Amino acid sequence: MSRLLESYAAGRWYAAPAEGHPLLDAGTGEEVARISSAGLDLGAMAHHARSVGGPAIRELTFHERALLLKELATHLTGLKDELYELSLATGATRRDSMIDIDGGFGTMFSFSSKGRRELPNDTVVCDGDLEQLGRTGVFLGQHVYTSRPGVAVQVNAFNFPVWGMLEKLAPAFIAGLPSLVKPASQTAYLTELVVRRIIESGILPEGSLQLLSGSAGDLLDHLGVQDSVAFTGSAHTAGILRQHPSVLHGGVQLQVEADSLNCSVLGPDVTSSDPEWDLFVRGVVTEMTAKAGQKCTAIRRVIVPSAVADEMTDAIATRLAAITVGDPGDESTRMGPLASLGQREEVRKAVEALRSSCEVVLDETSVDASDRGAFMTPVLLRARAGAVEPHDVEPFGPVSTVMSYDTLDEAVTLAARGKGSLVGSVVTHDPAVARTLVLGLAPWHGRILVLDRDDAPESTGHGSPLPMLVHGGPGRAGGGEELGGVRGVLHHMQRSAIQASPDMLTAITGRWTRGSQRTITPEHPFRHSLATLQVGDTIASEPRVVSLEDIDHFADFTGDTFYAHTDPEAAAQNPLFGGIVAHGYLIVSMAAGLFVDPAPGPVLANFGVDHLRFLTPVKAGDSIRVTLTVKQITPRSSADYGEVRWDALVTNGDDEPVATYDVLTLVAKEA
Amino acid sequence: MSRLLESYAAGRWYAAPAEGHPLLDAGTGEEVARISSAGLDLGAMAHHARSVGGPAIRELTFHERALLLKELATHLTGLKDELYELSLATGATRRDSMIDIDGGFGTMFSFSSKGRRELPNDTVVCDGDLEQLGRTGVFLGQHVYTSRPGVAVQVNAFNFPVWGMLEKLAPAFIAGLPSLVKPASQTAYLTELVVRRIIESGILPEGSLQLLSGSAGDLLDHLGVQDSVAFTGSAHTAGILRQHPSVLHGGVQLQVEADSLNCSVLGPDVTSSDPEWDLFVRGVVTEMTAKAGQKCTAIRRVIVPSAVADEMTDAIATRLAAITVGDPGDESTRMGPLASLGQREEVRKAVEALRSSCEVVLDETSVDASDRGAFMTPVLLRARAGAVEPHDVEPFGPVSTVMSYDTLDEAVTLAARGKGSLVGSVVTHDPAVARTLVLGLAPWHGRILVLDRDDAPESTGHGSPLPMLVHGGPGRAGGGEELGGVRGVLHHMQRSAIQASPDMLTAITGRWTRGSQRTITPEHPFRHSLATLQVGDTIASEPRVVSLEDIDHFADFTGDTFYAHTDPEAAAQNPLFGGIVAHGYLIVSMAAGLFVDPAPGPVLANFGVDHLRFLTPVKAGDSIRVTLTVKQITPRSSADYGEVRWDALVTNGDDEPVATYDVLTLVAKEA
Repeated sequence: MSRLLESYAAGRWYAAPAEGHPLLDAGTGEEVARISSAGLDLGAMAHHARSVGGPAIRELTFHERALLLKELATHLTGLKDELYELSLATGATRRDSMIDIDGGFGTMFSFSSKGRRELPNDTVVCDGDLEQLGRTGVFLGQHVYTSRPGVAVQVNAFNFPVWGMLEKLAPAFIAGLPSLVKPASQTAYLTELVVRRIIESGILPEGSLQLLSGSAGDLLDHLGVQDSVAFTGSAHTAGILRQHPSVLHGGVQLQVEADSLNCSVLGPDVTSSDPEWDLFVRGVVTEMTAKAGQKCTAIRRVIVPSAVADEMTDAIATRLAAITVGDPGDESTRMGPLASLGQREEVRKAVEALRSSCEVVLDETSVDASDRGAFMTPVLLRARAGAVEPHDVEPFGPVSTVMSYDTLDEAVTLAARGKGSLVGSVVTHDPAVARTLVLGLAPWHGRILVLDRDDAPESTGHGSPLPMLVHGGPGRAGGGEELGGVRGVLHHMQRSAIQASPDMLTAITGRWTRGSQRTITPEHPFRHSLATLQVGDTIASEPRVVSLEDIDHFADFTGDTFYAHTDPEAAAQNPLFGGIVAHGYLIVSMAAGLFVDPAPGPVLANFGVDHLRFLTPVKAGDSIRVTLTVKQITPRSSADYGEVRWDALVTNGDDEPVATYDVLTLVAKEA
Repeated sequence: MSRLLESYAAGRWYAAPAEGHPLLDAGTGEEVARISSAGLDLGAMAHHARSVGGPAIRELTFHERALLLKELATHLTGLKDELYELSLATGATRRDSMIDIDGGFGTMFSFSSKGRRELPNDTVVCDGDLEQLGRTGVFLGQHVYTSRPGVAVQVNAFNFPVWGMLEKLAPAFIAGLPSLVKPASQTAYLTELVVRRIIESGILPEGSLQLLSGSAGDLLDHLGVQDSVAFTGSAHTAGILRQHPSVLHGGVQLQVEADSLNCSVLGPDVTSSDPEWDLFVRGVVTEMTAKAGQKCTAIRRVIVPSAVADEMTDAIATRLAAITVGDPGDESTRMGPLASLGQREEVRKAVEALRSSCEVVLDETSVDASDRGAFMTPVLLRARAGAVEPHDVEPFGPVSTVMSYDTLDEAVTLAARGKGSLVGSVVTHDPAVARTLVLGLAPWHGRILVLDRDDAPESTGHGSPLPMLVHGGPGRAGGGEELGGVRGVLHHMQRSAIQASPDMLTAITGRWTRGSQRTITPEHPFRHSLATLQVGDTIASEPRVVSLEDIDHFADFTGDTFYAHTDPEAAAQNPLFGGIVAHGYLIVSMAAGLFVDPAPGPVLANFGVDHLRFLTPVKAGDSIRVTLTVKQITPRSSADYGEVRWDALVTNGDDEPVATYDVLTLVAKEA
């Protein structure tokens, strides 16, 4: 008998006191492992996540969490071979395993990098600009995201046992949430191996990751308001989850990513002599055969202009006929088996249903006389006019249906009949066609690939969700949204509007808020390294008069002789100025001269400026002064310096604001 | 018999062929109107919205839609008196009506202003930065929001018949969606009057707004993937809506805002001699009595330090006892009746349930011997230790329960026992207390007010949702999110990731994408008004050498003598520069000199700079040149000029990027 898969629950590996359900090799039909969650205390797992894992993760800043992910991804990359080996049993070819395994690690690397570049090195995220809620500025609003003190339950599909787990784990972890992973049984042995290696590494804090091998039992009964369930799988199961009392009444947040009837649309501008023709054919064939078509993003509906429908159908069928189906471990194999005989049975049923309104262009042929493996050759169908089934029946395998359109509106209508998809692609080299199709398709899709000769060299293809782009879609696709860089992290956090005085907002967010107290330090703040610099530290400069000579000279020196700075009569006609004004760039340049402390010290460089706005024109003879205040301090985890964002406020002699902006500097961590 | 309320359906007013259900005046018990939706074709209404209203709205840009809202709000403001008059029947005092009526108009004004300031004058919104998906930049990702071709169904509660409609209508309209409004029957006569005035005004395109007076019948059966339902009301009804097949399986997007057991927490730092003491007392009393406590944001749980619990309970009870309850039209009345006798019955039942674990501090007293009006005096309770009911039973009226804590952790735990709330408030003058309480409460709340002596002069109070801040909350509060300025608009739109070449992204988004074609125009682009300026128009400057004298001189002139520009030896030690470098401000100043076309013309001013980053240091002797390209054109609807955002790219002699930024200018609409 094969090995019984274990669960990792509440800090230890758990083997069910049961024989378990056998899991078979997709290609050979031999038993790979058994699985059971009998006797597992699911409530204790949820409790462990909330009481041990969550608090440990939330002790860390976003950057620290992100760095752990990078360390983990690097560690796992070194163990790739054993994962590839075991992945064969799922029916995956080497290329399929790459999508799953390397794709999973790549997602962790990407989130690690995004987390450190786009989130503060802190535990709270400010969302959007400060809102002034009253006249004088003593009452402000700031939206913030905070971590939920709950558990992120992740229910994954069988087709991506590695990527499926990691693409959910990475954003949840950065968001401060412990994960409780429940893989689909069929390929859970591969997920179990990855979890085992993660736990062994000791890189993640205990409680950050638990594994439920087997049935989810009453897990949802143990969840509450701060918990979430991210589900990838069938629309049917999603419907069941949506009806669970914990979701209906208990406030559990359910996020669904379901299979959908994704389409690829060929533009009317493309003929068989264009490079886009081949790109389209190859795209369809790749999506039908990668993972044996068992991808929720695969192309199920091929939408082409009527004029070329026959020619295109032939081209796809010809290419499909050349696909070698067989042992995934064999290098000549282009497509392995489906995940199981049961899965193949489902696909065949779907093909039967499609036959009622479609012609079969390329039918299934026999691969393996013994029929112990779940092999199936690609099937191409052609929809008859008015066919309903191709928009409704999803064969989760190497099956696709060609349908034709006459106008772009009709193409959009056909695409929309899928009732919401994860991804659509548009293959065209005509920008006007692209605009019409993409804007028509967009409300129905979470992602749209526009493929042409220009982006083809770097295109990652129709079927690949990328960590920096959202993955999910409306309607049939489940209405959820995962990934998308920081968006995927924020989905796990609670957004709240905070209304408070400036000082209170500074205390709560850890970021200096305009209007709150400034600390004029005895030493110039440029003398302070990150070790001693504080949010609120301020330099208030002396005033400087901007003379007409200064303006003349600056125009001369820089070449910026715009009439508002040089021609009194013309400037007087300008509706905004009514006379000669100083250059905006002169003001910020002089402001730098007023706030800078020139001697070598911890401040290394000014690497940028954000949100510069010129509010009041400066006329010759006006004096300006600048107040520079430390707004946000972001130590870089991988360097001996960090970023300091300064609030700069330039005022004139009447204390009116002349310019506001953020100055971005690099400052050493130690003096 | 009173008048039968009508529905506005598919372009005409509809009176049901039925007697209808009587609606009674809250204070007098007299019949105000009758209501019935018998015979209304709800499918036709949904179809009308999708086929007539939606397309008409989406013909307009965001700014055009926003301007119509402003026009409408201005128009309705002129008709306020008749609304106030009718509002009396709902039991609203003048102050209550202000919250509802003026609050509703204010929300429209706010969305109108936000829409024009924060959205492009276009129909597509770009979300976040461009993502470079490959090595060379030919394959990019850009998230966009597009309008859904559906209908926004809005199911409102009885307590805000005007605001409730307008706060949902405004963001939906700007998002490009037609609204189908279903008010709660009890106060539908006021909503009907407002809708009548809106339709009469002819300001909104036909089909943008329909009214369903009476039961919603089978409306949800007619909704699909692109449609949404925004529901405000009880958690019970929300649970029923969540189980509707259109929501479970049909992809209808449901957004819930439910009543919740909101709390107000008094900080341990506050004593009865602090100004915060009175602020707390007044906040609780106001929230208990405004709208007779029939606000989903009212304070139901008063959480105070044990040490002052008795004193605080007395203070609140004393103030409550002085509240005059009576005819809402009477100027001396502080609190009117509840909305109906049935409503009062519900509240009394809730108070009964609370008595099992609470002491009654202030009990209900009789107001009106005839008892035809739904009057009820405030009730204050004090929870016994370990009480469960106060965290679970919601009296939707002038009732609140005091409970006490010993540590801040305990205060957070008590607040969290509400299982998710719309709003919480924290009254303290100690920033550390504020930080601990706010960050503890945030995951459980959609909004948190921090009240102290500093923001009190401008505070809008615990109970008021503001248009620029999100309204909604996790768990019991429904898990939804409305308002929040542009956030509320985007919730109605679909976010999609677009993957394409730079040229295609420019065509699709209407915004110039870095890497796409530039058009070197024969005339300098500064010679073009908005009438002829095109996205992609470019000026590519001549090169200019930056000499050591230039750097020296600039240091001297501006006073920016930072050592990296002035001291060769010290600069050589700088880890980033390794020698003298030009000032960043010198580079952008010279760049302006290189790209500017000085003579008077349509370009009026440079009003700002965004996202300036210095990428490669410029050393003495390096030459720089600048390429300036029109990125985005935003005509201002209320001025004879608009904003032009230019992409600026400064490169050195080796064509390396030296600096990138956006230059913001005001340009006349006509030459």
